[in-house]
Amino acid sequence: MITKNQIKYIQSLGQKKSRDEENCFIAETPKLVSELLTASNCSILQLYALKEWIGEHANAKDQAEVIEVSAVELEKISQLTTPNRVLAVIKKIEWKNAPVVKGEISLALDTIQDPGNMGTIIRVADWFGVKTMFCSADCVDVYNPKVVQASMGSISRVRVEYMDILSLLKENNDIRMYAAVLNGRDITEMEKVDEGIIVIGNESKGVNEEILKLANVQITIPGKGKAESLNAAVATGIILSHLL
Amino acid sequence: MITKNQIKYIQSLGQKKSRDEENCFIAETPKLVSELLTASNCSILQLYALKEWIGEHANAKDQAEVIEVSAVELEKISQLTTPNRVLAVIKKIEWKNAPVVKGEISLALDTIQDPGNMGTIIRVADWFGVKTMFCSADCVDVYNPKVVQASMGSISRVRVEYMDILSLLKENNDIRMYAAVLNGRDITEMEKVDEGIIVIGNESKGVNEEILKLANVQITIPGKGKAESLNAAVATGIILSHLL
Repeated sequence: MITKNQIKYIQSLGQKKSRDEENCFIAETPKLVSELLTASNCSILQLYALKEWIGEHANAKDQAEVIEVSAVELEKISQLTTPNRVLAVIKKIEWKNAPVVKGEISLALDTIQDPGNMGTIIRVADWFGVKTMFCSADCVDVYNPKVVQASMGSISRVRVEYMDILSLLKENNDIRMYAAVLNGRDITEMEKVDEGIIVIGNESKGVNEEILKLANVQITIPGKGKAESLNAAVATGIILSHLL
Repeated sequence: MITKNQIKYIQSLGQKKSRDEENCFIAETPKLVSELLTASNCSILQLYALKEWIGEHANAKDQAEVIEVSAVELEKISQLTTPNRVLAVIKKIEWKNAPVVKGEISLALDTIQDPGNMGTIIRVADWFGVKTMFCSADCVDVYNPKVVQASMGSISRVRVEYMDILSLLKENNDIRMYAAVLNGRDITEMEKVDEGIIVIGNESKGVNEEILKLANVQITIPGKGKAESLNAAVATGIILSHLL
């Protein structure tokens, strides 16, 4: 049973403003919730779940308040087209130490606004062991429900920091900075690296001019077809697979 | 001005059954429509557009019937959250010759059901110059409006053939077949190739067992992070960038 106020509260977490005020976000589906339940930096506050899910996860109540809901109630609070048994309200992730740039490969995202792309980029970063993503303020919110779902649990392992990318790059001008352009060095012929910042630009506008000036390594993914551009998440995956 | 019957007709093209019956599909936004207008294998039947778009595309009427619509009317026929000036009804693409397997790199898609993924894979294939994608019958329809939009015009250059993938692979057992698995050969250390079929499996289930038995090259994208899997479109991009 869920109260009208709870429904309103959970629905409000679909909006960034409410997530920021409440310092919470939501995650759904048994697979994702199970993964976040085991993440040491995820503090789950409430679990709204069908009886069936609760029966299969008897220990969940040790970690969070568990509220049984009907399928109809779940549909009301879910952000998915097809709600799937459980919805968790989770405290925004807290990271222990300051983000590190030196000795690491990190990503800098410039104006990535599609939530599916952002979530997939987080998942790709996680696959390749990238620990930090610096995002310009106009990137989509990492706690947007669509980003959370597309990241498939990787948000608990990849730190996403919103900041002025340009300042970050200026402050770290001793670190190699890679940016994808149309006529740069062939990514497939480059040496592996273990330190650097890889800038991923907005799909339609590419990497911001000011940022491009700072990039000391301009790279290109060679293609012999006629497609105008690559999806940002695909480009990130290709670049990381060649550089790491 | 658009009639009620036209509205019904266009809305019906959101469904595969109607697209198959009518042998048509829809594409939207000025960018995509302009690209398809110049594609030699795309026969555009009608263009439903705002006055503004028609004014800017005076020649469009030489290629298709142009019907002026209001913003409200466009909203009724559009499949987009934010309709954008023009919607085209297009005859399904006709390809001149039979698809070729020998001497080419082609993709075989096994149960790719997410339209965004399918569209992005078509775009990735186009980027790398892959001409043919063989798709199992349970893959999402290439003319699904979300696939068309995500492909960004690449559907006019990459041929998508639905068929029994298993039979195709059995019939072409003299051609090298690559399939991604968890413990295969490191893709980053492989030689470039110019002939072969690359199998892309369903994200949650991977490549079908029967198909896997036929794969004479099992490949892996090495990752040192903890993400369980890569998005199918990202994986396709990474594999193609290393093999081609």
